[in-house]
Order: sequence, then C-alpha cells, then structure tokens
Amino acid sequence: MLSTMTDLLSQDEFLATLREIGARKYHDKHRFHVLMNEGRLTPAQLRVWALNRFYYQRSIPAKDCALMARMPAPEDRRRWRQRLLDQDGTGPGDEGGIEAWLRLVEACGATRTEAWEGVGLLPGVRFAVDAYGNFVRDRPWLEGVASSLTELFSPTLMSVRIVAFETHYPWVAAEGLTYFRGRPTRANKDSDHAVEIVLRQCTTRALQEKCLAALDFKCDLLWAQLDAIYLHCVSP
Amino acid sequence: MLSTMTDLLSQDEFLATLREIGARKYHDKHRFHVLMNEGRLTPAQLRVWALNRFYYQRSIPAKDCALMARMPAPEDRRRWRQRLLDQDGTGPGDEGGIEAWLRLVEACGATRTEAWEGVGLLPGVRFAVDAYGNFVRDRPWLEGVASSLTELFSPTLMSVRIVAFETHYPWVAAEGLTYFRGRPTRANKDSDHAVEIVLRQCTTRALQEKCLAALDFKCDLLWAQLDAIYLHCVSP
Repeated sequence: MLSTMTDLLSQDEFLATLREIGARKYHDKHRFHVLMNEGRLTPAQLRVWALNRFYYQRSIPAKDCALMARMPAPEDRRRWRQRLLDQDGTGPGDEGGIEAWLRLVEACGATRTEAWEGVGLLPGVRFAVDAYGNFVRDRPWLEGVASSLTELFSPTLMSVRIVAFETHYPWVAAEGLTYFRGRPTRANKDSDHAVEIVLRQCTTRALQEKCLAALDFKCDLLWAQLDAIYLHCVSP
Repeated sequence: MLSTMTDLLSQDEFLATLREIGARKYHDKHRFHVLMNEGRLTPAQLRVWALNRFYYQRSIPAKDCALMARMPAPEDRRRWRQRLLDQDGTGPGDEGGIEAWLRLVEACGATRTEAWEGVGLLPGVRFAVDAYGNFVRDRPWLEGVASSLTELFSPTLMSVRIVAFETHYPWVAAEGLTYFRGRPTRANKDSDHAVEIVLRQCTTRALQEKCLAALDFKCDLLWAQLDAIYLHCVSP
C-alpha cells in the first residue's frame, strides 16, 4: 500500500528521505566543487572561494546561538553548545573553526584582514548566508536543527577535498587544511545529535515534511553560494 | 562647567552614573526582599518566590544565546560563553545555575516538575522576564550587554541573603543555597567583562545614554517580578 502525505514515515523511511535530498542536492555535486576536486581551479579562483566561504564560517556561531536561544531543553542546549566551542575555539592550542578557516585564507594567498572586512564578498554569497541566519532565527527551532543535517554529507566531501588539495594544489600549505581535517569527526558527532533530535521531535508527518523542507532549503543556500562564486570567477 | 547631555562622560563619571542607577533602583531595596532578609516570609511565600524566579533563571541561557548571536567579535562571544556554561552546567559535579535553582525550589517545598511546568507562574513575572528576552533579541547588542550590569550589584544581595536564610529559614536545606554561594564570584567576573565592553564601545554620549537606559530597564524588570510576587502572596 502506498503511503500518503499524511502517514508518519517510519524512522528508516524518514532518514532515507533525508539522505535522498543530500544525494540529489548537496553541493558536493556543484560544478565549482567538481572543478576544485579535479585540480582545475587557479590560485585566484581558490582565493575567491576561501574568502567568500569565510563569510559562511564566521556566521555559523551566530546561527548556532540563535538556535540555542530557542531550544527548550537545557540538555539539548548543552550538547549543541559543543558546536560553539568547535567554531569559536576554547583557547591556545584549540583556536576553533573560524581561525582554521582564516589559515586557509592565508594559505590561499589572501589576508585575514581581507576576510574579516569582507573584501570581494559576493552579494549572492551574502544573501544566501544571511538567509540561513534568518531562517534559524525565525522558523521553529526544530527546523533549524533539521537544516544542520547537511553535516550527514560533509565528511565525504572533506575527505575528497583533502586528497584533492594535497594532489593538485601543493602550493596551499598543509596548515591551511586544518579545518578540513577536523571536520569529519566533529560533523559526525554533530549530525548524530541533530538526527536524534529530529527523530525524537517529529511525531507527525507534517513535522517530518517541515524538516525535509528545511534540509532542502539548506542545500539550496549552500548551492547558491557556489553559483555566485562560479559565475564570478569561472564563467563571468 | 556643567556637562551637557551631549558631552561624553569620562569613564569614571559613566561608571558612577551606572552605579547610581543601581543604588536607586536595584531590587535589593524592594519590600519583598526587605521582608525576606528580615526573616518575615512564610514557607509558602518563599515557595512562590522560588517557583516564580525559576522562570527568570531558566530564561537566562536563552537571553545570553540571543545576545551572543549578535556579538560581532569572537573574543567577546568566547568570554560571554562562560555564562552559558555557568547556567547550563558542564557535566556531573558542575550542574549549573538552573539545576542549583531547582534544588532551591525543592528545599522550599515545591517540586522541579512544578518549576518546569510553570505552576503558579504569575503573569507579571512572565511578562517581565519575556520583556528581557525580547529586549536583548531586538535592541542593539551593546544595550543587551549593558542590561546585564545589574551583576555589579548582585554580590552584596547574595551575601546578605545567605546569612538571612541561615538565620531565619533554617528549614531550607543548605543544598538549596548553592546557587547563592556560587553567584558572587561569577557575577564579578561577568560584570568585569560587561563593564569592559561598555566602556570600550561607548564612544559617544548617545551610546552612554542608551546603556544607562538599558540598565534602568533591567532594574525595572527585576523590580516588576517582585511587585507581582508581593501583590500575590504578601498583600493580595
């Protein structure tokens, strides 16, 4: 018997549907990433990418704080807090994701000042990143959690990227790859928690559909950033 | 020569003016606190107070997350993050301020379920606490920081309260006073950071006035909670 749009999906069906969205729309398939992984980007193009994606990276703690501000359970907030520690760092020796990305910016030949000042920040990137912040601030917190589920798909992309950089862009100092090396473990822990929340909270098909839409939206905003970058520096 | 409303106050003048607001309006002077410190509250009245003030306590991490979501500097966000750890706890042995307040609730004869479910939560308390969350979410982040400066005045109130409880309310188990014992040290650290931010960011008299108004507003919302509690259970 076919399920209708009102039947609650089983946890397996729901997870499979979330994964299908990633298989179809996650930005690992964007042609800018394909060029990157094939070693076909110039230093200037990588620099534009690193600088623009810094705007995304610097916005992540604000997104997570906005989300935690609306999480009702201290237990969830405590566990989600780890993302804040990961991205902002905890002190010397553990400077966090923002600092790691700044080192990538430098390894790509730009400066951290340019990154903080948003030099060359493309409007399409800004709009997409800001849309993420607004979504998490304004939509029900559960949808904010669901939007983070692209982390289910990021470990593979990170692993491919590390090899691609080592193979094709040896001029990017190893120091610049710190962000990518740290992400898979963290992303797995983070998505474990997000999956747990989403499975626990989605007690109706309507809520499941909202979460699927949130993940779809998140894929769109990641994709839109690469569209803007591609149009600007690969195919102007 | 008299300063006008357009002259920047010196740091000493500015700090003195902030302290004047506390001297005039901080809720240590509210008659409910006077009765409390004189040992003149009944167990039922203390219970109403502990339950109602729990709504404030549980809202503090959300307030701090909303504020951090808008802080531009990672350094400030990292330092402010300590408040989140203090209130939500870090793990076994350090359960945080919310848990400590739940133990006070229990020591006063109510249950943690009643606290979480908002049993007996007075509308006036809810409105005042929600006004704080809205203020921090909607106003410039600097004003949110300034609104936290009541922590300049809380250590004295906490010290007086511990003695008052030990003297007048021996039926409240020592375990229930954990929250008060931990606050002065934390409040001093927190207000050091908030003062540093406010002094650094207030580069015009207009900004100084906004911060003074924010602290004034915060005193109002603390006071309004006690008004509601007093009217309900001391002078109905």
